[in-house]
Amino acid sequence: MATLFSNATVLPMTSSAEGPHTFTGSVGVAGDRIALVSPDESAAAEFRAAHPGLREIDCRGRLVMPGLVNTHCHAAMTLQRSRADDLPLMRWLHEFIWPFEACQTPDDVALGMELGIVEMLLGGVTSFVDMYYFQHRCVGVVERLGIRAVLGCNYFDSNIDEVLPQIGEAVRLAAGSDRVRIAVAPHSPYTVSPENLVRGRELAERHGLLLMTHVAETRDEVRIVRERYGATPVGHLDRLGVLTPRTIGAHCVHVTDEDIAVLAARGVTVSHNPQSNMKISSGVAPVARMLREGVTVTVATDGPCSNNDLDMWEELRTAAFLQKSATGDPCALPAREALRLATANGARAMGCSEGELGVLREGALADLIVVDLEKPHLQPVNDAVANLVYCGKASDVETVMVGGRIVVENRRIPGVDLPDLYARAAEAVARIRTAK
Amino acid sequence: MATLFSNATVLPMTSSAEGPHTFTGSVGVAGDRIALVSPDESAAAEFRAAHPGLREIDCRGRLVMPGLVNTHCHAAMTLQRSRADDLPLMRWLHEFIWPFEACQTPDDVALGMELGIVEMLLGGVTSFVDMYYFQHRCVGVVERLGIRAVLGCNYFDSNIDEVLPQIGEAVRLAAGSDRVRIAVAPHSPYTVSPENLVRGRELAERHGLLLMTHVAETRDEVRIVRERYGATPVGHLDRLGVLTPRTIGAHCVHVTDEDIAVLAARGVTVSHNPQSNMKISSGVAPVARMLREGVTVTVATDGPCSNNDLDMWEELRTAAFLQKSATGDPCALPAREALRLATANGARAMGCSEGELGVLREGALADLIVVDLEKPHLQPVNDAVANLVYCGKASDVETVMVGGRIVVENRRIPGVDLPDLYARAAEAVARIRTAK
Repeated sequence: MATLFSNATVLPMTSSAEGPHTFTGSVGVAGDRIALVSPDESAAAEFRAAHPGLREIDCRGRLVMPGLVNTHCHAAMTLQRSRADDLPLMRWLHEFIWPFEACQTPDDVALGMELGIVEMLLGGVTSFVDMYYFQHRCVGVVERLGIRAVLGCNYFDSNIDEVLPQIGEAVRLAAGSDRVRIAVAPHSPYTVSPENLVRGRELAERHGLLLMTHVAETRDEVRIVRERYGATPVGHLDRLGVLTPRTIGAHCVHVTDEDIAVLAARGVTVSHNPQSNMKISSGVAPVARMLREGVTVTVATDGPCSNNDLDMWEELRTAAFLQKSATGDPCALPAREALRLATANGARAMGCSEGELGVLREGALADLIVVDLEKPHLQPVNDAVANLVYCGKASDVETVMVGGRIVVENRRIPGVDLPDLYARAAEAVARIRTAK
Repeated sequence: MATLFSNATVLPMTSSAEGPHTFTGSVGVAGDRIALVSPDESAAAEFRAAHPGLREIDCRGRLVMPGLVNTHCHAAMTLQRSRADDLPLMRWLHEFIWPFEACQTPDDVALGMELGIVEMLLGGVTSFVDMYYFQHRCVGVVERLGIRAVLGCNYFDSNIDEVLPQIGEAVRLAAGSDRVRIAVAPHSPYTVSPENLVRGRELAERHGLLLMTHVAETRDEVRIVRERYGATPVGHLDRLGVLTPRTIGAHCVHVTDEDIAVLAARGVTVSHNPQSNMKISSGVAPVARMLREGVTVTVATDGPCSNNDLDMWEELRTAAFLQKSATGDPCALPAREALRLATANGARAMGCSEGELGVLREGALADLIVVDLEKPHLQPVNDAVANLVYCGKASDVETVMVGGRIVVENRRIPGVDLPDLYARAAEAVARIRTAK
């Protein structure tokens, strides 16, 4: 089955040069790959001729671009959205988050993830990297809803012996999927011992899995790791061999110049979570500096308990604003660069090679979104990229394709009954709150 | 004509106490005022009986709350949205903004304002304070679209003699309106001489007008004012008698403890513009501190050239995030307080007395909005206020009422032809860009 998006404003996100980044033309998809990206009407005509029975979507007044990649979240925490805000960290964790989590079943987590994926898809997120529990239960949810995901199995010292076998089961379940990958996710260098970090690393190496962990999120973490191991969190992880091109480091707020050099040298993907960092008062990650030093930085929402949504448009905009504010330089993290963090760079976090995802290029995976430009806040179109980054909303996303399959059309997800989903979420929350 | 919003989640924003801020019930409107705010079905039945022929809107799954008040913007600059971003301030002004403005006609400004008002109404903004040119031409636009506005006539030393007579004309035009007020708007203490600041103040006093000005937005401004007048911008304005309860000070980023005491003592309304301050690298206003010291702080978008939209939901959320980030205290500017800045406090900037606007209370002006809670990013409803502040979107606003009149219904503005509006904006931009 082939699809042709015609008469579109096309934003391929492939050129790194200055100049016009969009053109009017077509994007053709055959199977799960992009097969045509062209301004030529004759190329579109050829594509039509070569794919009889294709579906053509007229994108007049619409922009076609790569889907957004959310490189760090805890999607199932939608169930706890807005349950406890504006609190000191330790009270928040001890009185609210952890007691709730102790009463959650794997089915609750799958339900929370379903709600989170629905929110992300409707906001143009085509790929996400998750870090939570019960991945073996969540593989089927991801498969059914059609999004692309890396599911990280989060463990602490306290539960590593439960989690590691679940990783094996999740890997088996995901083996037949071309959209789900499993990752090993030690929680952080201050909550997981060196031995258990190494166990996770070895498991990842054995199965060829990605590895993710929280790194240098708070000053307290840096202090604890320094006191305990005489190194920064980055330095400590590096000594243990945990930092590789297959590692995602979430946050990286409090990093030294030497840490940044290590992150760049090891090819680590950094997941920047600006709204979470602001809301929890973690600090400001030196994103502009990391980029300058060659670190692959991406953007992410973090979980809906600390943000409180899964909106990548607001996140990439906040990334740009926060760098400008913190550096005092209004030129820091310009619009196109911010968008690149959430597309092409994000694809790196998914374990994809360059050009395979996060760009519109012939041969790339067909993960793309159609954005309706005919909204008052996106008019006039003086600069489409600046409009998207500084004014674009999740609600402007009209149609979403993942791996060649349309998963959102005219802001609806076929097969998802939203009122039923909301009712199930409310019931689960009521039960869990009563239980604890 | 009366209207009854029934079966709603009602958020009156009247209580300052802890506890549940919402209830399930009804809001009744008669004429331009709120006549009923009650959880009792019997009160709703009485209201129905007292107003035969009323219109009833079933708000199941919806939340009714006061409309948002945007206390500082340059709405007509929508025409320049995303024309020039990520640039140093002086290049931005000299090469882009000013040359464009030199070629704008009053009709262009009215058109830009039309687009800006449409964007604001669709995002639940029921009142705004504007500061720009050609207010005499814009009164009719505000009247037609049904929003409430304070239109500030911006002047510099260079054009004061043109602008002051226009203020007189605008005041005459707005005299018959219950929704439009005119204000005197000297640009700032560093671009307007003491004499001309006093002329503006005297004009405002003579006609009973509000006065607004940019104050202490950048470090450069503070330096210039200190060098020239030996005082901070706040101190300088205070000496000239410009600071009163009828003054709106936009930005107030770089203020001393003494400045804050003066702003509190004079009853000045401060308009905080967090996204603009971040994007232009102006600094972080000490909002939490100003509130603690008794200053009336409000929230605003600033113009669409420096933000780049007129989205108050993102703005009030950013206000909360930025205070938490800058103070290192995750409890700073909690959700309900942030929402209060954008409603009840905003009403003060509009020149309203306490309880007249920005709250749902019997007798208050019927400026209210209906928010659709049945969106994935607003589910589950663990806390409606935290959901609104941390996850609410402009696109969640379904219906908007100003002064008892429904001006947005199911996300449509009766009488506005959006494609035609976009075409007119594009034409105006093309003409202006060719002209300069």
